[in-house]
Amino acid sequence: MILEKVERNTIEPKITLVGAGPGDPDLLTLKGVKALATADVVLYDALVNEALLNHAPEKAIKVYVGKQSDDESFSQKLVNKLMIDYALNYGHVVRLKSGDPFVFARGYEEIHVAESYSIPTEIVPGVSSALGVPGLQKIPMVYGNMSESFWVVTGTNSQGLISPDLYVAAKSNATIVVLMGIEKIKEIAEIFKAEGKANLPVAVIENGSSKEENVVVGIVDTIEELIEEKKLSSPALLVFGNVVSLHPQFNSIHQFYAIMAQEEY
Amino acid sequence: MILEKVERNTIEPKITLVGAGPGDPDLLTLKGVKALATADVVLYDALVNEALLNHAPEKAIKVYVGKQSDDESFSQKLVNKLMIDYALNYGHVVRLKSGDPFVFARGYEEIHVAESYSIPTEIVPGVSSALGVPGLQKIPMVYGNMSESFWVVTGTNSQGLISPDLYVAAKSNATIVVLMGIEKIKEIAEIFKAEGKANLPVAVIENGSSKEENVVVGIVDTIEELIEEKKLSSPALLVFGNVVSLHPQFNSIHQFYAIMAQEEY
Repeated sequence: MILEKVERNTIEPKITLVGAGPGDPDLLTLKGVKALATADVVLYDALVNEALLNHAPEKAIKVYVGKQSDDESFSQKLVNKLMIDYALNYGHVVRLKSGDPFVFARGYEEIHVAESYSIPTEIVPGVSSALGVPGLQKIPMVYGNMSESFWVVTGTNSQGLISPDLYVAAKSNATIVVLMGIEKIKEIAEIFKAEGKANLPVAVIENGSSKEENVVVGIVDTIEELIEEKKLSSPALLVFGNVVSLHPQFNSIHQFYAIMAQEEY
Repeated sequence: MILEKVERNTIEPKITLVGAGPGDPDLLTLKGVKALATADVVLYDALVNEALLNHAPEKAIKVYVGKQSDDESFSQKLVNKLMIDYALNYGHVVRLKSGDPFVFARGYEEIHVAESYSIPTEIVPGVSSALGVPGLQKIPMVYGNMSESFWVVTGTNSQGLISPDLYVAAKSNATIVVLMGIEKIKEIAEIFKAEGKANLPVAVIENGSSKEENVVVGIVDTIEELIEEKKLSSPALLVFGNVVSLHPQFNSIHQFYAIMAQEEY
């Protein structure tokens, strides 16, 4: 009993948010490996590759905190509660999050809760799927005259809607990456069509960076059809922009659409 | 002589573009470590941390290919030539690039050249400074009602100008990250002021993720002054958006500006 008390007195609560990258376990950073190696508890999300848990000590507690219910706010509340309880009772909690902790991952919400309990926090950035997944397909974010910027938007915001920002993005010359948007592809394609961009190249990448990766490349006008044909579904991201025409699969249809584009733009 | 010939026949040219991350050598991915471990040659950029070269075999040739002259196109041509020559004569060339290879890093130009020589290429995405550096400062890209998207723009495009996209970005509700923009802070601040955003929070982060990191947090109206006062210079990135108000240094001035913002917005 005395021993246990001493042990409990030495607990130093800490929460580290670690970006796990897009799926391939080798896309974790060395800093992420080091954080996991000192974890007393790992709370990991649904899209995190479980192979990453091997970087944590065997005795560390590993807790899956993927979606617990359809009620998102309840789920986040539960995660917050677990995170605080484990930190106070066990010490170093690693919150292992898919992609980067601050890109649509509610990372700041968790930092905020931790700080309200005066628990020290640290961030280990990760390879964001938004950039890394198109990159693995050799689709650059920017290139020559094709694009000088990129804009990352959510297809499903906290109200479950397409972000209003996407309507502005569709007017811009930026490369546009839409996360959590595949289930709203019909509405999203309409947004681009309304801007006269029916021929804009689009890529859809399902399970990016994993062995189950699937890619479809086309144009706004036909992308919904292609997604249905190839039976792609969530998790997937969408890339809209002329940079998608650099993808090898686009070459075969490239000349045909180039003629169409010249006529219509 | 015969031995040398045999050796040369076994050369398998390959070029891997590896994202080194923002500066902290621990922000390299495990996949990046593995690529470096099999490198015959490493061509590394000016902003890459040289500690990363220790992941390459001792006998690997390490070549610094930072800016060779003010003539950017000449410099990129020279890098391309070296990359091809080394791949054909030595085998596996790792192009170690700051941040992510496809975020303003001319990564696709290099892939394109390699493919024109039928040299196989591979991409290892990295932690982009655009996201990772604000993240380390606990500035999220998106948060609640503050921002539902983020837009990454260059302050210095291939013509040496502020990207025209920034004028559109300044009108949007996105969090805006400007890379290579600190030297044009006066003009960039004017763009935001023209949109009535003189009170928008701004962060400037110099040498992000390294030991020499410096941060300044303020609003559009005063940011130029603050940069001068703290003597910040390139390499640095700028973050424009309400998410910057979450930074701890912003708290002290937060209330004052909140009142101002209520009056003016």
